[in-house]
Parts: sequence; C-alpha cells; structure tokens
Amino acid sequence: MKRVDLNCDLGESFGNYRIGMDEAVIPHISSANIACGWHGGDPMVLRHTMELAKQAGIGVGAHPGFPDLLGFGRRTIQITPQEAYSYTLYQLGALYGFARAAGLSVQHLKPHGALYNMAAKDLALSTAICQAIRDFDPHIILLALSGSKMLQAAQEVGILSACEVFADRAYNEDGSLVSRSLPGAVIHDTQECVRRVSQMVREGTVTAITGKTVPIRCDSICVHGDNESAVAFVKAIRERLNADGVEIVPLRRVVEG
Amino acid sequence: MKRVDLNCDLGESFGNYRIGMDEAVIPHISSANIACGWHGGDPMVLRHTMELAKQAGIGVGAHPGFPDLLGFGRRTIQITPQEAYSYTLYQLGALYGFARAAGLSVQHLKPHGALYNMAAKDLALSTAICQAIRDFDPHIILLALSGSKMLQAAQEVGILSACEVFADRAYNEDGSLVSRSLPGAVIHDTQECVRRVSQMVREGTVTAITGKTVPIRCDSICVHGDNESAVAFVKAIRERLNADGVEIVPLRRVVEG
Amino acid sequence: MKRVDLNCDLGESFGNYRIGMDEAVIPHISSANIACGWHGGDPMVLRHTMELAKQAGIGVGAHPGFPDLLGFGRRTIQITPQEAYSYTLYQLGALYGFARAAGLSVQHLKPHGALYNMAAKDLALSTAICQAIRDFDPHIILLALSGSKMLQAAQEVGILSACEVFADRAYNEDGSLVSRSLPGAVIHDTQECVRRVSQMVREGTVTAITGKTVPIRCDSICVHGDNESAVAFVKAIRERLNADGVEIVPLRRVVEG
Amino acid sequence: MKRVDLNCDLGESFGNYRIGMDEAVIPHISSANIACGWHGGDPMVLRHTMELAKQAGIGVGAHPGFPDLLGFGRRTIQITPQEAYSYTLYQLGALYGFARAAGLSVQHLKPHGALYNMAAKDLALSTAICQAIRDFDPHIILLALSGSKMLQAAQEVGILSACEVFADRAYNEDGSLVSRSLPGAVIHDTQECVRRVSQMVREGTVTAITGKTVPIRCDSICVHGDNESAVAFVKAIRERLNADGVEIVPLRRVVEG
Repeated sequence: MKRVDLNCDLGESFGNYRIGMDEAVIPHISSANIACGWHGGDPMVLRHTMELAKQAGIGVGAHPGFPDLLGFGRRTIQITPQEAYSYTLYQLGALYGFARAAGLSVQHLKPHGALYNMAAKDLALSTAICQAIRDFDPHIILLALSGSKMLQAAQEVGILSACEVFADRAYNEDGSLVSRSLPGAVIHDTQECVRRVSQMVREGTVTAITGKTVPIRCDSICVHGDNESAVAFVKAIRERLNADGVEIVPLRRVVEG
Repeated sequence: MKRVDLNCDLGESFGNYRIGMDEAVIPHISSANIACGWHGGDPMVLRHTMELAKQAGIGVGAHPGFPDLLGFGRRTIQITPQEAYSYTLYQLGALYGFARAAGLSVQHLKPHGALYNMAAKDLALSTAICQAIRDFDPHIILLALSGSKMLQAAQEVGILSACEVFADRAYNEDGSLVSRSLPGAVIHDTQECVRRVSQMVREGTVTAITGKTVPIRCDSICVHGDNESAVAFVKAIRERLNADGVEIVPLRRVVEG
Repeated sequence: MKRVDLNCDLGESFGNYRIGMDEAVIPHISSANIACGWHGGDPMVLRHTMELAKQAGIGVGAHPGFPDLLGFGRRTIQITPQEAYSYTLYQLGALYGFARAAGLSVQHLKPHGALYNMAAKDLALSTAICQAIRDFDPHIILLALSGSKMLQAAQEVGILSACEVFADRAYNEDGSLVSRSLPGAVIHDTQECVRRVSQMVREGTVTAITGKTVPIRCDSICVHGDNESAVAFVKAIRERLNADGVEIVPLRRVVEG
Repeated sequence: MKRVDLNCDLGESFGNYRIGMDEAVIPHISSANIACGWHGGDPMVLRHTMELAKQAGIGVGAHPGFPDLLGFGRRTIQITPQEAYSYTLYQLGALYGFARAAGLSVQHLKPHGALYNMAAKDLALSTAICQAIRDFDPHIILLALSGSKMLQAAQEVGILSACEVFADRAYNEDGSLVSRSLPGAVIHDTQECVRRVSQMVREGTVTAITGKTVPIRCDSICVHGDNESAVAFVKAIRERLNADGVEIVPLRRVVEG
C-alpha cells in the first residue's frame, strides 16, 4: 500500500497576531512544520501548537527561519554557513523543549521561506543546516525540495532526508520547480492539482511543463492552511488520496516504512 | 572536605557587541550561567560559550531572561505564570541544543535579572519556572536565592535546587538580602567579602547586618566577570577557598555529593 | 454647536500580520492614534495608514508604546522617566516622518496600552512624556484619561491636553474609571453605552457607578476597530451624536474651537 | 581655502552594550552619522549622542540601516524599494525627533553598512532612499560613495549630495573602490593613507591601483572611532589637513560653500 505524508506550516501566530487556520487544517494533515519563534511563532504559540499536534497524533517538525519577523522569514539574508548552523540549532533546540515537555519527539526539520530557497541552491548552507541536525539528533529527517542541494547535503552529512512536492507548481524535466517568474509556473485549476498529486504519489511521476512524463520522488506533499480555500484544497487532496487507496501517514512512517 | 561551586554569568555578548570577560573568568569558576539569546547572547555566542565551557570542564546552566535585549533583562515585565513557563522552556531548549551538540548535559538553570528578582518573591512565577524545568528534565538543578520562593517552588514541584550566596551583599537575620536601597547593603571591602565567603562556605553561617551570626546555606557563590577587577575578585575568592581546603566543583557535585 | 472627536487606534498590523479593520472604521472616526512600530505597526504600515488618514481627512496622532511587540505593549515594563522621554520622542519622530512626507501635521499623541495605564497614575512618567512632546512640538495635544496624572503633567509642562472617555466603562464619582476587577466595570449593553456617550457629550456629565450624576470632561470618545461588531458600535455612536446635533470633528477643532 | 568634512559613525551602542569611542573621536571630526536604532543605537543613546554632537558643534546626520541588530546592519537583506523608502523615512524621522528636541537640524543622511553597499549599486534602491529624504526635507544632503548609483539617484530626485572618500582603500581608475576580495584593496600603512587623503583633498586626485592619477571628488572623509588606533588615525589625518591649510568643516559648509 502506497504511503504519503501531508505537511503544513503551523504555529506562525505571534503575540496578539493570529495567522493561519491551524485548528481547521490539522485534521487533514499528517505532519506539522512548527515555527520556532524567529520568522513567526512565539513560546506561547509553540506550546499551544505542540498540544494540538499531540492531540491529533501528527508528526512534529521544526520550521526554522531567518531572524526577520518583519519580513516573515521570506527575505534573503546573506548569512554564513556558521550562522546557518547556529540559527538552526537554536531553533531546533527551542522547538525540542516543547516537544519533550509534551512527550513527543521531533520527527523532521524543514527550513522556512528564504532559508529554504537559499539552502536549496547553496550546498554550504545546506550542509551547515544538516550538520546542526546531525549534531542534535541524526534521526531527525530533513524535509527538502526534490532535486535540491539540501538532499545532497543530507546524504553527505549522513542524516535521513525526505522529498516534498507541491500540488500547484509546474516542474521542469529534471524534477526542479519551474521558476515563478515564468508563465505556467503555478497551476490554478484545483482538479488538475489534485490529479497531479495523485499521479506523483501513485506512479512516482509528474508531467513536466514540456509535456514529458518524468520521475519524481514524493514522500510528502506540502499543503497550506492560510485560509478557507486552502483548507478545502487540502481536504480535496486527502479525499482523492483516500479514494486512490493511498495511506496518509506522518513522514517518519513514509521514510522508515 | 567542604565543596562549593563558583557560578558566573557568561555568553551575554550579542552580534557585534562584546560584553563580559568570559575567557578571563572561566579558569576561576566551576559553573556557567549561559545567556539564552533573550536578554543577551545569540546563537553564535551560545555555540562559542558552550565550547569554552566544554574545554574548561565547568558545569553549564541555562540563564533565561526576559525578552528585553534593550533593558538587558533587568526591567520588571509583568508576565503571567504561563508566559514564564513558556519563556523558560523555550530558552532552556535553545540552550540545550548547543549543550547536546557539544556533548554536554545541562546542569542547572538560573533565571536572569528581573526574572530572578521577581521569581524570588512570587511563588506562582517560580512554580511555573520549576514546572518548565521538570517537564524538560527533572534532573536539572534550579539555582536560586537563599530563602526565596524559588526554593519553595522547586521543592513543591519536585526538582533539585541549590542556594547561591553573594560575596558583596549584606544579609538580614532570616538569610534574605538587605535591600540595595538601605545603607550597608553592599560591602565594598574586598578582604571583608572574601572573609565572609570563607565563613559562609566553611561554617555555613553569615554575620547578618544586625551583627548576629545566622545560618546560611551556600551551595554556590555568585561571581562576575564584567571587568578586570571583578575577575581579580573571583581569583581572590578562589585562592582563599583553596587555602581553606575547600574544593571548588561544579554545582552538580555539590548538590549530589 | 457641541463638538466631539472620535479617536481610534490604527496601523497596528506588523509585517505579514494583519490586525484591526482600519479601512472599515476610518469613515466613522475623526482622529487616528497611529502605532509607531514598537508595540505594533511597522514603516510600511505607517506609510499606508498615513495615506488612509490623509484621504479621510482625519486628525493623525502618535500612539507610542513599549518596546514589546510580543506583548502588544500591554504589559507593564518598569522604565525610568528618562527612558519614557526618549521612547516617546523616538516614536513621535518616526511617526512625524510619515506625516511630513504626506503633508500632514501631527495633531496629538496618546500613549498606548500599559504605558497609558502607567502614565495615568505616575506623574514622573507622565511628565517625561509631556516633556518629549514639548521638546518636539508644543502644539501637539496630549490625549489622556480624564482625571489622570497625564493631564496634570501636561498642564505643568505647558502643553495642550484633551480628555477622552470610554463608552463602555463605568466611572467612579471622581471621574476615574471603575477598575476592571470590580463588578459592573464594563457595560455590555450597546444601547446603554450609546446613551451614556450622548449624555457625556451633550451634558458633560456621567452617571457614576454609585448612581450619582457627576461632571466629566469629554473632548474625545475612544472607539475600536478590532472587529465587525466594534465597527458597528462606532457607527451607532456616530449616528446618535449626529441625531443629537453634535458635530464630530478632529481633536484639534475640539480643543482649539 | 580648501574645505573638507570628516564624518564618523556614532551612537551605535545599544542598551547595556557599549561600542565605539564616541567621546574620544568627536573632537577630531566635523560630522556625525548617528545610528537610528535599527542596526545599532537606541533612544537613550540617540539622545546622548545628539547632546554630544551639539556640544561639539558638529553636523548631525541620520545613519539608517537594516532591521538587523544581530548582524549590525552588515548583511544584505533583499528589500524592495518601497521598503527602503519606508525604512529610511522611519529612521530619519526618529533621528529628527532628537535633533529637533536638541535644537539642531539634520544636515545629512548616509545609509549604513549593507544598505550603503546595496544602494551604491542599485539605482531603484538609491532612488527610494533619496525620495524618502526629499519627501521629508529636500535640504538634507545625501552622503554617498563617489561614483555610485546613490549620486545618480540624488541628482534625478533633486536633492543635494556629497561624496565621501576612504583613506585606507585603493581606488580603480573610474573612481570606484577596489573590491576587498582583491589584493591591495586595503592600505595598511598609516603614513601612506594620510598622504593619499592630503592628495585627494588638495588636488582632487587619487593614485589608482593601476598607478594612474585620476580625478576624485572629495567632500568628506570617512573615518572611524572603533578603537584607540582608529582615533589616533583620525587625529593624524586632521593634523595633516591642518598643516596643508585645509579647513575641516561640517558637510553643509563644504556643499553650500
């Protein structure tokens, strides 16, 4: 039986500010990327989110980002690999505090926003992130962009890794994402997105923007809980996967079988 | 043979800003209270400080403070016990990340600045801090002011605790500190401070401001590494204790024997 | 013809975080207290809010708060009067930058949250805030709680001041607010609130919690734009005042006639 | 008589953290670039620095930087021109608050660190910074790198600008700085630096790294007050210029004559 994980960013509220429909999306996902207080999230939100994840029985992961609350971690900041190592370790440790207090283990780590995008292309940065994971706990899985430097770094550093795919993004023939600056990069038709997810999970292939069918590794599907239509989209993906006979499980069970 | 710990705040530099003579004071102390990035410290400083502590073989502790870098954690902020719990857990986890990566365990936790002063008088706040420690790791020792609510909270919550004394502060007959607003609260004569420390450690007593000799529990002596004279003072205390035949050891060995 | 101002906190969104229904409430108010980037708000939000205020022709005021985004400026922080002076001047200057660029002048300043509550009771703090206003521009009006130390400070320092009242709060006979910890402190019946506002504006009196009718100075009514019912409430107050023949004008026109 | 300005970054201390020998360097300079609380500085430091500048009679300028205290504003952050506009206006306004309270006007603005370096090469960013200056006060002088996009932007936007030179940096034939990554980019010999400054000021030329003498516009010399040798270097430059008969005056007097 095929298995796949559905991962979603959670816990990005901050102080008096609410963002994301965490409670609404949690029933539909199997893993949570939890903000660690830098690009979003705070200790009170972390604790609450950890409790929600525990009650739902989903896998919890660290979602470290840049020290840029003002930019929500979405702006490139030129940091050194040493900084990337320390920033990752700090946020992973902080997240771990709440996981441990809740009796949970940290399943995975997925860099957030600009850190994710930079690491995907920069081996030195990715290596530093993977070293932080390894030095903390080598059983934590790096959740990464398919075809990215992050996967190479994880392998070289000797930690587990997993690939995530995007339901609404077009792919090049080499399995990389079509740049958002190009036409057709984002797929707006929901049915088409759901169909593509089904193909990626069941067949391990995707129809590239060129029309050619190419292989793609899909351990987890990245979904969003930003608003009601996003939550409805997650639900539609889940229903299709259920209909396909695909089991939706936390990332650990996909990776370790 | 008598044993005592010498604890000092370390790792309070931030980014481009240097504060404290960490390298100079480390050879003279046995435990470090390491800033966790809120009132001071940052991930790069944390990593470096952890390495220094490891090389010196001293005990490492978390030194969580208020989210107030501008005020260096020294200003009272009215937080709830729930916030105190989450803030402590966050910073303890973050510190733990670097300890674990360095192959060290977290020996103790000592609240910083205004959080320390508030917790000393507020049982609900102290209880929340102790619960965070317990939920993370009940073997971590709370390092607290003698005669404070923190000790009561530690006992009620069921975690280990230890008492610290101050070389340059006058004590009331009940073992509490004379308020800084009163004359004679701070002792400026170095020789007198050293003599008082010797008495507290060897005899377990202190001459209160009233002149009466009263019992005091002294597991650790709080020292500073802010400047050269502070470091010289630590050295003087250490030399006196050595001459007294007192063994200076990390807090864990004082508490657990 | 009677005149009164309706003031509302605006521009408290931050980065990716939205808070407050600014666009919806603006048509109903005559003055805006604009967050200055410390407890809420950021430079992009400031610029946008200033444009909204300009288009609506309402008075703009600085709404300085504590450097505590995490607590939304609602937590007491023990600052010195010198810090209050500098924090006020900094935020007032920052706000002024956007006002000047938009061709507007700064009409008033109203401290936010815990700073407002502390200043209401602390003359030294209030005096420092008023001195910052005076040293920047003595024509800026301090908008303050009726019966508070802020008004006394404004008079002593020699700047203009104005009194605001709260539609949904009970008053003591001396014109001070009934503490929120006491029963009856908050009035939940909308019609009753609207009626009380009408009385305060037209007759200059309020029915105290004791039942006695006492005088109250009402230059401005504090309203909120947090959610749809808050906005509906502002609209109801406005309609009643219109029906009463009261003119709703920016604070400057109330104070200077 | 030749005139030149000596500008130095001041007021970069933050809270409990001290950085820079402001008091020591002030007697030797004629203009101060004062940190505005983002990359460094805080309201208490701003106020103190403004007082020092007032007593010394030097020109005061805003020194806005990235919202990155952790990186001291030295790390590239990918911001939009709209963000650059708002960030500049915010910090300029805040600085102005303290200048106005001290009875001073804002003479100039010089972007800090990575913002300076980015703006030097990016016309859209530079234009946004210049527009913020213009919208606040078109009499404020932009102090910029010779040969940079900042100067072009200032001209196009219609504000005053001035060129600064660096005593210890090598120049290309086109008047741009030799990249720090190339050999010979930094000149370590103090006497040679002083000699080069003298030539740049008196003759308006610099010996490029190729050996060719090329023209350079020098309105201001950028100096540092980070440590004792830096201060001694400023003093040496000042003495040489005095010996050369060059008058050292605030930037306004260089630009407006």
